[in-house]
Amino acid sequence: MSSNTTSSDFKGWVAHDPSAADGNMKWGSYEPKSFAETDVEMEITHCGVCGSDIHTLRSGWGPSDYPLVVGHEIIGKVTRVGKDVKDLKLGDRVGVGAQSGCCESCGPCKIKQESNCKANTGTYNSKYPNGDKSFGGYAKSWRGPAAFAIPIPEDLPSEVAAPLMCGGVTVYNPLVSYGAGPGKRVGVVGVGGLGHFGILFAKALKCDKVVAISRSSSKKADALELGADDFIATGEDPEWMTKNASSLDLIISTISGSFPLDQYLNLLDVNGTFVQLGAPEDALPSFSPFSLILRNLKIAGSLIGSRQQIRDMLELAKKTDLKAWVQVRPMDEANQVLIDFEKGLPRYRYVLKN
Amino acid sequence: MSSNTTSSDFKGWVAHDPSAADGNMKWGSYEPKSFAETDVEMEITHCGVCGSDIHTLRSGWGPSDYPLVVGHEIIGKVTRVGKDVKDLKLGDRVGVGAQSGCCESCGPCKIKQESNCKANTGTYNSKYPNGDKSFGGYAKSWRGPAAFAIPIPEDLPSEVAAPLMCGGVTVYNPLVSYGAGPGKRVGVVGVGGLGHFGILFAKALKCDKVVAISRSSSKKADALELGADDFIATGEDPEWMTKNASSLDLIISTISGSFPLDQYLNLLDVNGTFVQLGAPEDALPSFSPFSLILRNLKIAGSLIGSRQQIRDMLELAKKTDLKAWVQVRPMDEANQVLIDFEKGLPRYRYVLKN
Repeated sequence: MSSNTTSSDFKGWVAHDPSAADGNMKWGSYEPKSFAETDVEMEITHCGVCGSDIHTLRSGWGPSDYPLVVGHEIIGKVTRVGKDVKDLKLGDRVGVGAQSGCCESCGPCKIKQESNCKANTGTYNSKYPNGDKSFGGYAKSWRGPAAFAIPIPEDLPSEVAAPLMCGGVTVYNPLVSYGAGPGKRVGVVGVGGLGHFGILFAKALKCDKVVAISRSSSKKADALELGADDFIATGEDPEWMTKNASSLDLIISTISGSFPLDQYLNLLDVNGTFVQLGAPEDALPSFSPFSLILRNLKIAGSLIGSRQQIRDMLELAKKTDLKAWVQVRPMDEANQVLIDFEKGLPRYRYVLKN
Repeated sequence: MSSNTTSSDFKGWVAHDPSAADGNMKWGSYEPKSFAETDVEMEITHCGVCGSDIHTLRSGWGPSDYPLVVGHEIIGKVTRVGKDVKDLKLGDRVGVGAQSGCCESCGPCKIKQESNCKANTGTYNSKYPNGDKSFGGYAKSWRGPAAFAIPIPEDLPSEVAAPLMCGGVTVYNPLVSYGAGPGKRVGVVGVGGLGHFGILFAKALKCDKVVAISRSSSKKADALELGADDFIATGEDPEWMTKNASSLDLIISTISGSFPLDQYLNLLDVNGTFVQLGAPEDALPSFSPFSLILRNLKIAGSLIGSRQQIRDMLELAKKTDLKAWVQVRPMDEANQVLIDFEKGLPRYRYVLKN
């Protein structure tokens, strides 16, 4: 791809209806946003596969705006640079996460918490301020605001960097926001794409203890290999709650199905925090306020992370040589990858490669 | 009462069974804790009437340990000082709140958050480490650890200081813990004993905006007179939620009945916190995690406050000449006061006076 990329060069896995989620995306052309002088284009080399991709393909969070191209864990080489872009040049390796735009002037933007900007543009199935649709990374190329294309540190492999752009920062943000580090005991509920990053980053941040929590012990060996110090199988040990009461300072819940919130709260010590990341389609269950009141607990939610957090996380991943468990699959096989993802097969993140 | 007080001098309103809550306490003698050289005794002048008193009298939070004497908003004059007490002397005016003991060595105690100490001794219906029962302030005298008898600043009237010892600090703690002050917009749910202190302290802390939230507008005039800048009547204005969406940074919920948590969360702006103080006998309702996730919200609980917070609060009350709405009633009429309390008559705190 040259620096004269035209719109007609944009080809990717286009979803035309909810059946796309079942492996029915069609390879084809699409019309990206119009090029602005604050934009860059990149030739995509890698794109991670995130649960949000499938939710969106099937209109799981409300009707999606077809045609669409998903993928928001994008790594590539810069191939075109708008005149007003100062920080990037041709050939730079950059990454784009789940967000590709914000107003830069509202309250959350001013405190560098742009993922909570109300004028947030998602990297796909969203719109830029001029009304153009946003298209993601299951494709050959990406075009969008340079402000959201983040340089990838040298020596960090692209297949590791890709899933960090959304999955990684989604757990990194609440870990650092709620004090994970030396002296802290962290639980990670769910050993999947997000949960595996939760274990890795809680260890990279030097938490005293990292405990993986899952219904069955089927992923126990993996969790321990990832670095977890302990494992709780809630479906197999009837004593799990009493045995582990008040044993954690922070719980990161990566699951989106129903779960026993009251019992998880019991695992928290005084001043502990439970953070919900997964967005269930159902409501959270009712729960007793006594544990909140008596032990000064908090329940919080968290959404992706800021660009600064992405930069910090990438540096930490590089510095600690983060051993993400990534399975690289050819971009050509994206439809089959979706099917495999839905079967729960990834250990623990698929990355599509062009 | 002399400095030679003996156990036989301890007389108060003794509850013998749950009917005490209906105005059936009996005036009589009781055996206080054995005197330790770290204890003080005081002649009680004032004792506030707290909802917890009635819950405990009727065994509302589980079976109470009758006979008992309630009251944990106690003000009096020191009449006896143990040899190992350094900071208090005969004649000092002191106050005792809901807590009269802690281990002073556990994690929460070390960070001056002793209300979360597991070895917490409640001022009534509880036990000291030696096994002696604790008795509260609907009485002539109080005996207990000097470490929990807090000097009352000069010029702060005893009838104002009394209800601050529990009701006041219960709202002051979450206000200061969650950042109430200039630039912050605070909502207070429920205009009762706690809620009226919530409005007063949010104003004393110089919050930008203080909004009282109640089902009906029956207390609107009171709330505005207390200093609230605005009032939301959730039962009378069908548009209340949409009109006030994202308008607050902190909500202090003082109610303990059922309430629409999801709708209250909608009132919070990005990074907002909802703090539950009242301990309902039911669970909190189920709620959508989307608002937590999308706006980075927190739900927290809070329990009374520390001794340092009580000292700070008393200073603030003195400095700002806090206009608590207190109704002084004779200690003799304690049974009738309970009946009136249960009818919702206090505007907004009853204080018994010897």
